[in-house]
Amino acid sequence: MARPSFAEIVNNYSVIFFDAFGVLKNSGGLLEGTPELLAWLNRSGKEVFILTNDSSRAPSELARIYEHPEHGSLVPASRTISSGLLAQDFLRNRVKSGKVAYLGTQESTFYIQAAGLEAIPVSECSFDHPPSALVLLDDEGFDWFADVNRAVNLIRRTNLPVVVANADRAYPINNHNDVAVAVGSLATMMESILGKRFIHFGKPDTMMFSYAFANAHANLPKLAKKDVLMVGDTLRTDIYGATAFGLDTVLVLSGNTLPAQHQILIEATGIVPTYVCESVFT
Amino acid sequence: MARPSFAEIVNNYSVIFFDAFGVLKNSGGLLEGTPELLAWLNRSGKEVFILTNDSSRAPSELARIYEHPEHGSLVPASRTISSGLLAQDFLRNRVKSGKVAYLGTQESTFYIQAAGLEAIPVSECSFDHPPSALVLLDDEGFDWFADVNRAVNLIRRTNLPVVVANADRAYPINNHNDVAVAVGSLATMMESILGKRFIHFGKPDTMMFSYAFANAHANLPKLAKKDVLMVGDTLRTDIYGATAFGLDTVLVLSGNTLPAQHQILIEATGIVPTYVCESVFT
Amino acid sequence: MARPSFAEIVNNYSVIFFDAFGVLKNSGGLLEGTPELLAWLNRSGKEVFILTNDSSRAPSELARIYEHPEHGSLVPASRTISSGLLAQDFLRNRVKSGKVAYLGTQESTFYIQAAGLEAIPVSECSFDHPPSALVLLDDEGFDWFADVNRAVNLIRRTNLPVVVANADRAYPINNHNDVAVAVGSLATMMESILGKRFIHFGKPDTMMFSYAFANAHANLPKLAKKDVLMVGDTLRTDIYGATAFGLDTVLVLSGNTLPAQHQILIEATGIVPTYVCESVFT
Amino acid sequence: MARPSFAEIVNNYSVIFFDAFGVLKNSGGLLEGTPELLAWLNRSGKEVFILTNDSSRAPSELARIYEHPEHGSLVPASRTISSGLLAQDFLRNRVKSGKVAYLGTQESTFYIQAAGLEAIPVSECSFDHPPSALVLLDDEGFDWFADVNRAVNLIRRTNLPVVVANADRAYPINNHNDVAVAVGSLATMMESILGKRFIHFGKPDTMMFSYAFANAHANLPKLAKKDVLMVGDTLRTDIYGATAFGLDTVLVLSGNTLPAQHQILIEATGIVPTYVCESVFT
Repeated sequence: MARPSFAEIVNNYSVIFFDAFGVLKNSGGLLEGTPELLAWLNRSGKEVFILTNDSSRAPSELARIYEHPEHGSLVPASRTISSGLLAQDFLRNRVKSGKVAYLGTQESTFYIQAAGLEAIPVSECSFDHPPSALVLLDDEGFDWFADVNRAVNLIRRTNLPVVVANADRAYPINNHNDVAVAVGSLATMMESILGKRFIHFGKPDTMMFSYAFANAHANLPKLAKKDVLMVGDTLRTDIYGATAFGLDTVLVLSGNTLPAQHQILIEATGIVPTYVCESVFT
Repeated sequence: MARPSFAEIVNNYSVIFFDAFGVLKNSGGLLEGTPELLAWLNRSGKEVFILTNDSSRAPSELARIYEHPEHGSLVPASRTISSGLLAQDFLRNRVKSGKVAYLGTQESTFYIQAAGLEAIPVSECSFDHPPSALVLLDDEGFDWFADVNRAVNLIRRTNLPVVVANADRAYPINNHNDVAVAVGSLATMMESILGKRFIHFGKPDTMMFSYAFANAHANLPKLAKKDVLMVGDTLRTDIYGATAFGLDTVLVLSGNTLPAQHQILIEATGIVPTYVCESVFT
Repeated sequence: MARPSFAEIVNNYSVIFFDAFGVLKNSGGLLEGTPELLAWLNRSGKEVFILTNDSSRAPSELARIYEHPEHGSLVPASRTISSGLLAQDFLRNRVKSGKVAYLGTQESTFYIQAAGLEAIPVSECSFDHPPSALVLLDDEGFDWFADVNRAVNLIRRTNLPVVVANADRAYPINNHNDVAVAVGSLATMMESILGKRFIHFGKPDTMMFSYAFANAHANLPKLAKKDVLMVGDTLRTDIYGATAFGLDTVLVLSGNTLPAQHQILIEATGIVPTYVCESVFT
Repeated sequence: MARPSFAEIVNNYSVIFFDAFGVLKNSGGLLEGTPELLAWLNRSGKEVFILTNDSSRAPSELARIYEHPEHGSLVPASRTISSGLLAQDFLRNRVKSGKVAYLGTQESTFYIQAAGLEAIPVSECSFDHPPSALVLLDDEGFDWFADVNRAVNLIRRTNLPVVVANADRAYPINNHNDVAVAVGSLATMMESILGKRFIHFGKPDTMMFSYAFANAHANLPKLAKKDVLMVGDTLRTDIYGATAFGLDTVLVLSGNTLPAQHQILIEATGIVPTYVCESVFT
């Protein structure tokens, strides 16, 4: 089977949705070649969006890594769409007032504050005057043992709504194929202990694709789903969600899905991307 | 706690999304009072949509039950949105050509044919010239033993894409609180045997809410999510999905969720509707 | 890595536990070579037991296939241990009296009758005078659509205890790698619809291994777990359960686990057999 | 319905199996009345065993709390059976040599050392010279963030066997109905991230009941399962496992299962104890 290069594939689409981790960057920074690729896509008239389950900081902060000394902003903040933005909409519309407890970094509280609410760490919130909601934003910034236990008992006692702003189980961190446990895994563990269902935002649910597509459509009124390509490294989130939403997909093997296992995983899971590439640079 | 009546609640919204089974009808037909309610909503200028995971027949057929000798069409087919329509879009865009095998009634093949494809029952499809895809449409119309086994082995041998057009586990059928096993449960069983993930359409995924909201928005350009009310009888699908999408919700106790258990279930699951009503008539 | 033959492996053990389907037989009958293997093991002084999740008929009937015109009974009924025997013990001790409804073949009712109880098909049992318990025995012998739906509503209305006498998801049936859906999968589907937990018997739970080990120990008072070898074709049941119980294991590739996938499956699942053989004849 | 007192129930049995947490003690120590109850059972000739998923320390240490200034040892260490003992057997027989990494307290390493192996905290073990196995013993004694992440990557890189010595999700800690997350929940989270199945010991698997029953049977050769009563506070582990093993059961409402919810939980889960008591003192 002939495998087209990423550059050849991209030719057939006018809008490109990229996952970030494992595709364009890892925890060490941008992958080599990413600035050149993004600059070329911009020159070619492609509209580029980032769709990420990373809610560890504001879109403007997430977009900062794509600022280039020469080429300028390669992906503007307005096209950097995180699952945190969906959580933020939910908080603004559904919670409305009061303090919102969180698990995550200080930077991740952006999404609570942008909803007009006050953020308070789980470690500091009172059981007697409980917060209006609890948001799981990021796996860093708190003491897992103390604060996961505290959050479990806070939910048991007050039955407050719980929002999960990152549906990932784990994310790639380095070149040894190591991963970090994502806050989505802590959420699933807590749901199982409590027998409850939290409100989850992010891929694979199709809402993030709807959100990004609506943004793209506002600029390009004739845009159809067949004109949009999703590029990701994870079958369960990027490829499954985009396929259900109706987009063509590229699975890249530079992140969560290992080259040696991708064929078996595709066959085993039944989640079949339109294309497979080693990376976005090949 | 004062419990507003359904009529009072509805006053605050301009668009009403209704689940069908257990809310407006059961397998015996429309619930008593449904025509009068819908006529009153129409007179009051409310836009009414049906959002159903029932893909057993075409929207035009599903809408037929809402035609009234006096009041005419109480919910037009264009506002009767089934998960089958999402499956149909998927088939048209992703499968493109060839025969599509199905489990379901003859009437349910509407969604395959409307995608420009040829429908073939699982019982008649050949392993040597396998179909392009398999669609699970309805729990009726086939021999469970023979055809579920045949479908499992068809997927094992050919790894074709599998689409599930109804995400329900069961649906209410009568006044004894009896249920029928929905095709979504057969799908989950097959996924577990095969270790694969099929492509699911319908509530609780937010795509059906996006689809209906976009339709409503086309008529009402100023429509915001806060102007839309979802009315359903099932926490896991209707209330969870609409809440995640950002809508206010009414849980009615005339279907899947029993009056005696609703309070415990809400507390136990953590899925909290905005309002609870005995039925849409109270 | 040198792979010892099955004959070499067996030398180090005095008692051999065999799974039946996919190891010694399939739905077409005994695999070629099985009688000679069993006769040789008997001559070599090995004690042979069958441990099967097949509860479709009595142990005496299951053992009939191992009767040989020349060598006589290669595995006596007393050493043919099915999960049905554990279910039978449970029914005798816990249900005590009344009619017991079942899903399964006529032959599978042996286990109900041997517990001193009356068996009645789900299709014939009354909701007004409900049975004392429900037992899921086999995937054949009933109308899946009518009787699974009937069983679900029987449980909803009467909350009777439900026993599952076969924990398998599927079982191999022929040389095309086709499988049949086992009653354990129907059980899991029903549990998910009802939100209940049935009482399951059979591998991978360790009780069947305890039961067989106690039988073997009665004859061989010095028997230790390290003297017993479990031979099976399924990682999730045979190998996992025997490993947890403390036995050495052989995975054979003549049944559920395909030669091309076994290495990946072992690595992916983390369930690691002591040995791997193509079959018990190599 | 007449509810017999615990003292009346106990009359019909010669051997009593007690869960510890939520039945006889909580994290503050023995419940008031426990010493008198145990002394009375001993005087009445009942054989008492503790069956606990608590592997945080050696049986001799777990038994220390039952030593009484006046009555002496109310439950000897030889009758204090923890899931750690099953894990210890497994390690001795299956791992045999090398260092064994662990998550847990220093005291919990008893079970590794008793198997003749060297215990090493996950935080100190090398990826280049990986340990022979990993054991999850307790939720305390390590840094969740650092060490759970480290353990996940250790398993990804080396595919070593992983043993879980505590199958609990959470355990009761005080009179406010608060719980602590048990190491069994961390195990399930790690399995989900890795797609692997660890080897689990403890209730609800029936092996712990087999183990205790065999101990009791050695003293009382005529003992039958109908002579043994299991007393526990958790439906999913104590009551389900003992029921499947064939024992009568008492659910007490002094721990995990709240008085206000027990009837609903029994009906919802389908796990039905033989008796229900407020506590073992009523």
